[in-house]
Parts: sequence; structure tokens; C-alpha cells
Amino acid sequence: MTANPQRRLPVGVEILPDGTAHARVWAPHAERVAVVLEGGLGATPEGQEPAEIPLTPEERGYFSGALPDAGPGTRYRLRLGDDGTLVADPASRFQPDGVHGPSEIVDPAAFPWAVDTWRVPPFREWVIYELHVGTFTAEGTFDAVIPRLPALKDLGVTAIEIMPVAQFPGERNWGYDGVLPYAAQHSYGGPDGLRRLVDACHREGLAVVLDVVYNHMGPEGSVVHRCGPYFTGRYCTPWGDAINFDGPHSDEVRAFFIGSALMWLEEHRVDGFRLDAVHQIFDAHAQPFLAELAEAIHERAAHLGRKAVLIAESDLNDPKLILPREIGGYALDAQWADDFCHALEAQLVGEESSYYPDFGRFGDLVKALREAFVFTGQFSEMRQRRFGRSPHPARRDQFVVFLQNHDQVGNRPGGERLGHHLSFPEQKLAAATVLLSPFVPMLFMGEEYAEPNPFLYITHHDDADLVEAVRAGRREEFAHFAGHDAAPDPQAVETFARSRLQPYLREEGEHQALHNFYRALLALRRELPVLTDPDAERDVSAREAERVVLLHARGDEGETVAILSFCDVETRVSLPVPAGSWVKRIDAGEARFLGEAEVDGDRIESDGVVALTLPAHAVALFEKR
Amino acid sequence: MTANPQRRLPVGVEILPDGTAHARVWAPHAERVAVVLEGGLGATPEGQEPAEIPLTPEERGYFSGALPDAGPGTRYRLRLGDDGTLVADPASRFQPDGVHGPSEIVDPAAFPWAVDTWRVPPFREWVIYELHVGTFTAEGTFDAVIPRLPALKDLGVTAIEIMPVAQFPGERNWGYDGVLPYAAQHSYGGPDGLRRLVDACHREGLAVVLDVVYNHMGPEGSVVHRCGPYFTGRYCTPWGDAINFDGPHSDEVRAFFIGSALMWLEEHRVDGFRLDAVHQIFDAHAQPFLAELAEAIHERAAHLGRKAVLIAESDLNDPKLILPREIGGYALDAQWADDFCHALEAQLVGEESSYYPDFGRFGDLVKALREAFVFTGQFSEMRQRRFGRSPHPARRDQFVVFLQNHDQVGNRPGGERLGHHLSFPEQKLAAATVLLSPFVPMLFMGEEYAEPNPFLYITHHDDADLVEAVRAGRREEFAHFAGHDAAPDPQAVETFARSRLQPYLREEGEHQALHNFYRALLALRRELPVLTDPDAERDVSAREAERVVLLHARGDEGETVAILSFCDVETRVSLPVPAGSWVKRIDAGEARFLGEAEVDGDRIESDGVVALTLPAHAVALFEKR
Repeated sequence: MTANPQRRLPVGVEILPDGTAHARVWAPHAERVAVVLEGGLGATPEGQEPAEIPLTPEERGYFSGALPDAGPGTRYRLRLGDDGTLVADPASRFQPDGVHGPSEIVDPAAFPWAVDTWRVPPFREWVIYELHVGTFTAEGTFDAVIPRLPALKDLGVTAIEIMPVAQFPGERNWGYDGVLPYAAQHSYGGPDGLRRLVDACHREGLAVVLDVVYNHMGPEGSVVHRCGPYFTGRYCTPWGDAINFDGPHSDEVRAFFIGSALMWLEEHRVDGFRLDAVHQIFDAHAQPFLAELAEAIHERAAHLGRKAVLIAESDLNDPKLILPREIGGYALDAQWADDFCHALEAQLVGEESSYYPDFGRFGDLVKALREAFVFTGQFSEMRQRRFGRSPHPARRDQFVVFLQNHDQVGNRPGGERLGHHLSFPEQKLAAATVLLSPFVPMLFMGEEYAEPNPFLYITHHDDADLVEAVRAGRREEFAHFAGHDAAPDPQAVETFARSRLQPYLREEGEHQALHNFYRALLALRRELPVLTDPDAERDVSAREAERVVLLHARGDEGETVAILSFCDVETRVSLPVPAGSWVKRIDAGEARFLGEAEVDGDRIESDGVVALTLPAHAVALFEKR
Repeated sequence: MTANPQRRLPVGVEILPDGTAHARVWAPHAERVAVVLEGGLGATPEGQEPAEIPLTPEERGYFSGALPDAGPGTRYRLRLGDDGTLVADPASRFQPDGVHGPSEIVDPAAFPWAVDTWRVPPFREWVIYELHVGTFTAEGTFDAVIPRLPALKDLGVTAIEIMPVAQFPGERNWGYDGVLPYAAQHSYGGPDGLRRLVDACHREGLAVVLDVVYNHMGPEGSVVHRCGPYFTGRYCTPWGDAINFDGPHSDEVRAFFIGSALMWLEEHRVDGFRLDAVHQIFDAHAQPFLAELAEAIHERAAHLGRKAVLIAESDLNDPKLILPREIGGYALDAQWADDFCHALEAQLVGEESSYYPDFGRFGDLVKALREAFVFTGQFSEMRQRRFGRSPHPARRDQFVVFLQNHDQVGNRPGGERLGHHLSFPEQKLAAATVLLSPFVPMLFMGEEYAEPNPFLYITHHDDADLVEAVRAGRREEFAHFAGHDAAPDPQAVETFARSRLQPYLREEGEHQALHNFYRALLALRRELPVLTDPDAERDVSAREAERVVLLHARGDEGETVAILSFCDVETRVSLPVPAGSWVKRIDAGEARFLGEAEVDGDRIESDGVVALTLPAHAVALFEKR
């Protein structure tokens, strides 16, 4: 499909190995396409018309050609057809003035990478930290994240997951309104800013996962609908027409999005992707887009001598996403297990206060700890239908679990983090349930020290109608929440400012103790590989009446039991701890975690059953000796 | 889901084992549902109000109850809510006065079946005959088909496939406008008429496949939209909103359609289903509807000590439909291979005259003979995208091939059968290509003797707007055909009358000779099991320049080569016939088939390559001795 064999990707302006600039655009709706330069290698002299370079039509709606008078830093737009429409390049690598401004030519090969080889651990060892660049620091830039990386590494994080950075309208947004999936957000620091951050992560030994949105685009600033059939009316999403992944011209639409992922992989050296809401990707093609995306990324990464993971956000509870191709799967690496989060939240805050009504039974949490999914085909009240199927034969290290992510937090009217609803001992219990589970844990920024600031929904649109539509939509979404009238205005800059982290808090009181607890748990995950061994034998035993769970793991590398009590008073229970001597490795009640009471004894001698007195919200991990 | 354990199916009025009538209705849109009897066990006396029996609400939108004053023959309607809306029962077993009339209670257990045990051959041995009840005979009824069955059996047919019979509006229709998927069309003879036909088929040793439409309903006479969320706006089909197979309440929608299939299986004893256009069934559920349908039918048939096959019409070229569940498939038994038909048609009538532009190369036919699919992932001009994937590891006996079906015939402006465009020798070549292929062949009624009458699109709507909409739709569909102005009016009774078969023709001249050829080929399929052995080794060799194909099959049960020449003049070719002695078993040039010239010799001695002189459109089959 790529006419010029020197090009790496199907679309966009690239600097070829010989140093010349070369453009390629997919615009089957246009009879002709030209690149309009805003100044060649220098600026356009005053009073002079900008140079306009017509591209040559190729097959299937592509147009391409050399841009002899252009190079890195040259700004340009595309002219589509004869009517004078000027648009940004859909595959723009940089929008220095935002979505409504010109595109700018970038030479990624010119970036002075400090780190050329780095190691990404096996996925079972990952600890992911989801962060939003805009609110993670006061500056809200890629560069400002860099000084914070050593602390994340010290905490035990192995990978940061960056909320979407593809160019979105305005300067403030969660990122899910992106419209130019090849351009890193200008207000975050643009493509070179992202490269500096990735380089710094690799220097620290941290992997980088980028959140990418391939299920919709726009609305503000979208140019693709002028270029070609990127959308189809055959499927509807909450955001309107679905992306055209299986209709006429869908080969080129797929190439556009796969090209975006390859671009982040190659030109920005990310180590993986979180794929937003794949259940909104509708695709009846015999060769599914997601499977083609996975194959393209895995192949390209292998060719580069690297690894890259694909993690789906999915509301399907269908393991086909992550199963191998030979058994009908799409071969993504992992998927989020939202059920785990909901089942845990319901036990912590009560079903009535929970965002999801379907997860109120203690057995739901037990099932989530066993299988990651709670819904494996049974009837869901919320969905009013049977939902999901067994995750078998997917492995445990193919599920990412979390106490909360940006959605659970930000989609509450007040943007309250779950911790705002929990006592200090409950926060430690919640952390331990995630971090002692056999799945891959993810933290949402600030969770590790109980950040008190909210994480609020934010936008920064130009279009007044759109601003009002977003406000109305949020009001509707929150109508069933108490206190919804107090939901802040997403468009207001104060809403953005209020969502910023206060990382200095992690050196104070309970914030510090919670941080210590997270760090200690993550250290144990490294010290005791059985905790993350997907091949370990595992039992989850529950004492439902007392609301106590026992997690047992036995592998080649050791044997552990974790005790988690969801009971809010002291309770005495008999637990089926396998026979032998057990040494306690951590207890949430220890003084270093500002605890008040520990599970009794530093050592357990079990003949198969042990009677223990557990403080309220007890957490303890024992290792067999 | 079935509240009364004596019931067999989730919905409809059933006569329970104790002889009482019991109703169950799924109508979540209604606050209350009543059955309004038009006369109890006798007729309602004049001047007396019909009895109205309120049903009891159950969970999830069902309503049910005994109908003490009703029995077989009682007519009824449903009253939904308080506004007096009276509708037919969505699961009506009989509409004696058509879609707009009342439903009638039927007791299938009272039917005097003549045949209680019958044998259905393995699918590899099937020869399917697609027929439309309305035009197959002058009477247009199920009963009128019965006297024709011996001739079909004599021809070599093993199964009839009946175009849809679920109650449709009016008295004339292909059947794809059905609105009541539990009721056999009244103008064909209703449910007992269908039972008499199925019973007669089983007496003749013929299997019965019923064409069922589970991808849309209506429009005229549809009642389901008043009852519940049968449709969803999230997916669009050519007929409007798609059926709700994965949204809220889809469990009950699925149960409704699976119940329909179970009803045809149990109450009418059909041996299989042809599933209309499964690519219009949109379903992102982790447990796909089609897989659940297949499981339900296979399990129920096994429980009854029977076999039942599910054959999909699919425009996806995706073998997942027919692959086992363990490797991600839906476990349907077979699917139509439209590619085979298109590739064959293109070689016979030329690409320009073909309905489909994508199949012009001789190699396409060769690939179809090898793999059933032509499109296994390559770019399709017609679809403007890559299409399909390899059918591997599906078996050859999972594909149904045909020269034409109702669609290819009826969707031409003049309803011309393919034979109308072919010379007599070409008709024999076409037949042999289908019947000597390793797939399961299907004939379209009348094809076997070159019926000269067309098979035209027919409707019989009440609604004048709908009649005009259908006319306009057909005009649009035919706009690119020459002679489209002459397309007959679908609504006219003459259009229906013109489409009737003239079976007496099969005793005249070339009609008779073609019929003899079909019969002889089908006799050979039985005599030479290697022809249908899915495990036989097979080669398809082509001489593209001469347009000659050699089909070689070698199995435990023998070895054959078939020679098919698509060349319209005599040609001399060298063919890779495996070394040995070969005896000719059939030749289209024989006098009994009114041929003019045969492939030379009754016997071939091959040293690995044989040079042969082939008459135009030669067909010959040799058996190794």
C-alpha cells in the first residue's frame, strides 16, 4: 500500500532517509489533494502566497508526493478538492497551535534518545500506574512527569500508563476527545516532549503504556470525515456513528489506526497500549481489526527486538480478546477486569453506594479473586440479560485489576476517589486485595497516598454548543447521584486546577503510612514470585458469614497465604491454612502502617485448620517456611 | 424460564399433557396481557362478548395462565395493556385468516403421524432441492408437493429445503417477509399441512430443511414491536433496526427465536434449518446467539434420538460459523458457499453479464473447487475491502454449493434462471461442476430439467404504501440491469402465476436429456463414495489457457478423475491424470444426454499425463480400475 518504499507508515509527512520530506494522505472523498506550506524551510516572506504542492493520486484514495521545499519545523495544511477547504493532516505528527492550527513536520529520527536498549519485564511482573499528564503535576506537561519517576520506581511501579495524548481540542481534556491520532498533545509538550518522557522512563527501567482511542474520534477539530469514509452508519456508539472497520474502504481505515499504533511504537518507543472501550469497535469482518492490530504491533516490536503489550478495556467479559488465534481469539495480551473493581468496591462501600448494582454479594468478590470475571454467563440486573462467559483458558496474568481507574473516579459527580469514602484501615484492605491478587495490578495516580483532591471530568472546547452539550450530558449522567447538582463545570479552568495531585502529602501521617503499605506490598510481590506466578496452584477460601477471604498460592517458588477481613469488627474464624509452619511477612496492623492491632502472632503452626482472631479490616500475608 | 413445567416451549399456547390449554406471552412493554377468545370450545354465541382471560405476570416480562374454556381450534388474540390493543400472538401456531386475523390453538400431539422413525443420511451424502411451496405446484400448497416427492427421490435428491413458511402477509411471498415465526403459512395449508408434507418426505426417505429468518421480521403484520424490545437501534440492517440479540432483554428475544426452531423441530419434525442471512444478525455477546441456537437444536435432536443440521447463509466468508466451539466457532453444521456459485456463473455467462463483478478469473473457479471460498482475505472490488479468510480447518462437507438459488434467479429483473442464458451443453457442464464437486450440492427447483418459466419476486401486501415501496425498491435494485424496465410488478397475481413450474416438461427433448444427466450424475455420487468423501485426497488441476479443469479424488473407497471443459470449441490438452487404467463412467456427450461428441475413448491408459481431445463444454468422469 505504501507507494514509496522509503516510507515507514502509510500516511502522514515523513522525513525519508535521504532527508527529504514526503507526504501521503488518504482522502478518497477528495478529487485532488495539495499540501499548502506555511513557509518552506524558512518562513513565507510577508506578502507572498504560501507554496502549494499538489499530490499525485494513487490507487484506493491515496495521494502522495515529495515536498521539496519543506523539512522539520515546516508548518502545513491540506487543501482538499477545489473548494478551498484547508484542513489539518489527519496523520499530523504535531499541532503546535492545537487542533484548529496547521500541522508541523517532525523528524523523529533526529531525536537524541539517551537510552537505546532497555528491558521490559514479563507482564506477570508488571505493576501499572495510570496517570493523567495534565493533572499529575502543576505544570501538566510530559517534562514535569520526569522528576517524579524515581519515586514511582521506588514505590514498586514497573510501568506508567498515560491517559490519551493524541491531539485533542483545547489544552485540558482527559484525552478521550482526541481527533488526530498521530500527534502528541501540544499543551503537554508535543511529540518531543513525549519522547523525553519515554526516554526517562526507560532510563529508570519503567515501561510506558499509552492509552489509545480507536473506537471514535472527535467531535471538535475532527477532519477525517472530510477525507474519507472513516465512519459507518451501520453501527451506533454512544458517540454517534461507529468507526468503519468492516465496510467499503475499511482496509484503509484500519491502516490509518494501525499506522497510529505503529507510530507510537516506533517513533515514541512506547512499550504497549491500553485500547479504549473495544466493545465500541464493531466489526463483523472475518479478520477482526483488533487481531490485525495485535499482529502488526507484535510483529513490528519483535522485528525491533522489543516487546509490546496490548491491553483492552472491554465491557464484554469475553476472553476471545486475549485467547490465541488458533482457538479463535484475537491475541491481545491482557484486558481490564472491571468486575474485580466493582465486586471489591461493593464490599467496601456497600452495594447502595456503589456505581454498579450487580456486585453486592461477598461471593462476587471471592469469584473475582478466583477468575477475574464475576459475570461468566449469569443474569445481570443492570444489563437485563445474561452477561459474559468463563475466562478459561486465559491465564491470570492476562487480567489487569485495580481498585479504581480514571473512570470510576472521574465519572462521579464530585470526582471523588474511592478512598474518600473509606476509612484508613479500609484503604489498606482495598490496596492489599488488589496487590495480593494473582492478577496484574494497576494503581490510579494518587491512590497510593490517598490523594484528597478529586479527579474531575474536564474539557476545553471552543465550540459553545459543544460546551453546553457536554454540560448537559454530564448532568444527565449524574441525575441518579445524590449531590449531582454540585458537579463542577467540566469546561472551567478551576475544575482542572482542583484535580491536580498534591504529592508532598505522601510524607504526612496516614498518607505516608498508606504509601508505606503500598510500597511494602509491592516489594513482597517481587520477593515472593509465587504471588504473581500464573502457573501456581491457587485456592480462594471464604468465610462468608465473617466476610473473610483466604488466598492460598503454592508454586515452584514458594507458598503463601493471605488473609483479608472485610469485617468491620474484630472476629474469630477458623481458616483452612494448609498444614505446616507459616511466618508472617506483612500485617496492615503494624505500627509502620499506623495500624492498631495485628493478626495474632508472627508465626502460625497449622494442622490444616487454624483458629485466628482478626482485627477489623485485617490484612496479613504468611509465607511457608 | 418456563414457569409451568408441563410446557415444552417458553411462549405460545400449548395443549398440556392433561389436555388443558396454557398460554405464555413475553410482553415486557405491556403492564397486563389478556387472552381474548373468539368463542371457547365452541363458537362465541352471537351477541355475546368474547371471553377475556387475564394472564398472570411472571418475572422478566412474561405473562402466563391456563385457558380453561379453550382447546384446539379455539381462535384468540392478545390484549396488551389497557388501551384495547388486540394483536395476534407473536408465538401463534396458526393464523387461519392470515397475519391480520386471530391466532388459533393447535395441538401438535394430535397429529396422526404415519412415520415415527426415519433415517437421515450423513450430511456428506445430502443432495438438497430448494423449493418454493407457492410456485412449485399449481395449487401452491404443502399437500400438492407430496405427489412430486417420488420423482425427486428418483432424481437422487435426499433432502428438500423449503423456502420460509412462517406466516407472511397475504397469500403470495417468497417467505422472507414473515412476521410470526411459529405459524406455518395458512395459504400453504397451515401447520397440519406442513406436518403432512414432512411425514410424506420421511416416508420417502427424504429429509426436510426449513428456511428460517431470524435476522428481521415484517414489516406488514408485525406485532412484536408492541410486545417488547425485539429490535435495537444500535445496529442497522437493510430492513431497518436489527433484532436485539445482545442488548437488555435479549435473553428473552433469543428464547423466542430458539423456541421457534425447537417448535419446527419437535412439532413439525423437520431435520434441519437454513438460516437466512446470518451476517445481518449482529451480536457482540460473549455467548453468540447462533452458537446457542446450534447447541439447543443439536441437544434437543439428540434427546429425541434424531439428527438436525443447521446451514447458514452467510456473506462473511468466515468459517467461525461452522468451526467447533473449542476453537472459537459457533458449531453450525454447514454454510452456503456463494463464491462457488459466482465463480461458476462468471465462467459460464462472462463476467460482464454476471451479477457479481468479482469473480471473472478462471482461477477463481479453480479455487472455489478446491476451497469453496474464493475470497480468503484478498481485496474485493465489489466490497472495496479485503474479504473473508481461509475456510481451514472446516471440512468440505460443511459447504453447500449450487449453480443458482432463489436469490440469483429471483433477484434478476426478469427472474431468469441461469439456464436461460446457457446453451444446452453449457447447462450440462454447469450441473456437472456442482455435482462432481466435493461439497454438498443444492439444486433450485426446476433447474434439473431447465424450467423455462422465470422465478420472480412476489409479494401480496395489504398496505398500499408498502406495495409502492417494494416496487420502488425493486426498480432501484435493477437500475443497473439491461431490460430493468420490463421487471414485472411483484404485487401482481400474474407475476406469481408466471413463476410456476411446468414439471411435465421434464419428459420432453432437451429438458428430458438434462434431467437424465442430473439423475445419472447423482446416481454416480451414490455409487462412487470417493466423490463425497471429505477425507479423500483431492487435487484440482487447471489448464487455464484451454479453460479445462481436472478434479482428482483418491480415497479408501476408490479413485476418480473428472474432466470439465469450459472451452466453447473442441480443444486438445495434456492433463495430469495419475498413472493407471481409467474407465469412463459418464460423458455429457452420450446420446442419452443428447450429446454430440464424447471425450475420446471409454478407457484411458495414463503414464501420468494424458493428451485428450475434448469437445466444447466436455464433461467426463473416469474411475480407476
